[in-house]
Amino acid sequence: MSGTVHGVGLGPGAADLMSVRADRLVRGARHVAYFRKGGRQGQARRIVEGMLRADAVEFPMEYPVTTEIPLEDPRYAVALAGFYAKCAAHLRGLAEGGADVVVLCEGDPFFYGSFMHLFTRLKDDVPVQVVPAITGMSAAWTATGAPITWGDDVLTVAPATLSEAELTRRIAETDALVVMKIGQNLPKLKRAIAAAGRMEAAWLVEYAAMPEQRVMPLAEAETAPYFSIAILHGEGRRP
Amino acid sequence: MSGTVHGVGLGPGAADLMSVRADRLVRGARHVAYFRKGGRQGQARRIVEGMLRADAVEFPMEYPVTTEIPLEDPRYAVALAGFYAKCAAHLRGLAEGGADVVVLCEGDPFFYGSFMHLFTRLKDDVPVQVVPAITGMSAAWTATGAPITWGDDVLTVAPATLSEAELTRRIAETDALVVMKIGQNLPKLKRAIAAAGRMEAAWLVEYAAMPEQRVMPLAEAETAPYFSIAILHGEGRRP
Repeated sequence: MSGTVHGVGLGPGAADLMSVRADRLVRGARHVAYFRKGGRQGQARRIVEGMLRADAVEFPMEYPVTTEIPLEDPRYAVALAGFYAKCAAHLRGLAEGGADVVVLCEGDPFFYGSFMHLFTRLKDDVPVQVVPAITGMSAAWTATGAPITWGDDVLTVAPATLSEAELTRRIAETDALVVMKIGQNLPKLKRAIAAAGRMEAAWLVEYAAMPEQRVMPLAEAETAPYFSIAILHGEGRRP
Repeated sequence: MSGTVHGVGLGPGAADLMSVRADRLVRGARHVAYFRKGGRQGQARRIVEGMLRADAVEFPMEYPVTTEIPLEDPRYAVALAGFYAKCAAHLRGLAEGGADVVVLCEGDPFFYGSFMHLFTRLKDDVPVQVVPAITGMSAAWTATGAPITWGDDVLTVAPATLSEAELTRRIAETDALVVMKIGQNLPKLKRAIAAAGRMEAAWLVEYAAMPEQRVMPLAEAETAPYFSIAILHGEGRRP
C-alpha cells in the first residue's frame, strides 16, 4: 500500500489562517518536507513552529541556487531540475514505502508555488493530494482595508518580472491589479504604475498576515522585500 | 464598549477548508448574519451547519431581488442599496449595543463578495474585522489537478458578464485565466474561448470543494450553475 504525498497550503503566514484540514494534516504528520534557502529556517517551517509531532521526521529541501545565477541562464534551469528530481525521488521513496508525507507549502500550492515542480514529477507514480490555501494576495488586499474587486471588475495578477512596457500596458488595461515578485523590480514597477497614471491609488503590502506586516502607498516605498505585493483596487459597480 | 462586526470568509464550501481563525469565530459566535436568496437556506449558512452555538441568534439577510430585475436597470441598484443599508443598520445596532457579530461570507469577503457592501456602510461607525479565506477559484484550479500559474505567468480573472469582444481579447492576451459568474453567459464564454483559440485547454469546474463537485472540459459543458468557474492553466517556466 502506497502512502500519499500531501501538498499542504499553509496560507499567507499566520498559523490561524491555515485551513482546518491543513492544521489537522500538519499536526498529524510523521514525515514533513519543506523548501528553504540554504542556512535558513524557511518561511513554511516557521509557520508551523510548535505544531509538529515530537517524532516528526523533517526533510528540508534546500535550493541549490537562488540569486547567484540569473533566471535566464540555462544553468539555473539545470540546477533546479536536478534538485527537484532529487527531492521528488526522496518523497516517492517514502510514499512507496507506505509512508504519508506532508509537504509544507507557503500560500496556495498551485498558485506560483514550488510544490508544483514536485507535483508534476510525482503525480503519475504515487497518490498526491493538494490542499488549497489562502493566497498571499488575499492577505494583502485584506490588509489594505478595502475590497479588491466589485461587480464586473477584471483582476490582473502579474509578476513584476515582466518588461516595463508590458507591465504598463497591463496596468492601464485592468480594473484591479495584484503584482507579485517585486523585490529588485520595484523601481521598474513604480515607473510602470506611474506611466499608467495610477500611482495615487497604488499600495504596497509587505509581509501580509505576518507579524512584520506593513501597508504603505506604493509611491513611498523605496525597497520591497520578497514577501511584498502591490495592489490597485477595482472600482466596479456598488449599489 | 462597541462590539465588532467580523466579516468571516468561509472559503469555497468544504467546512474543513475554513481557516482555523474562521472556525473559532463561527463556533464562538452569539450573533451570526448571512446573505441568502428568499426562501433558501443559503450557501454560507449551509457551510456552517452543525457548527453554531445552541444559543446563536441568526440574522438571515434575504436579497430583495436577484434575477427579476436586470442588473442594468436603475431599480436594481436602488433596491439593493436600500437592502444593504437596512442590513448594515441592524448590524450597527448590535455592535453599538456591545455585541460581536459574525457575518458568514462565501469565499473571500473582499473578492467579489456581498459583504463589501456592508463593510463600506459600517467601517466608519463600528470596528470591522475581515478574515480572508480560500477563494472559490483556488478550489477550482485545485480540482482540475493542475497548477494555475508558473514562473512569470500573468493570471486574468474576468467575469463572464463582459462583452464577447472584450472576453475574447482578454482570453487571447493572458497566460492563465479564471472566469467567474458564468451561468447564463456560458454560450458567450464558449464562443469567446473558441475565438481566442484556446477551447481545447479550457476546463469548467462546478461546485468546487462541495460534495457536488464536477470537473469537465469546457467544450462539453451545456449548462453552468452559478457556482461554476472556467479555468485555463498557464504554461510558464518550469525547470
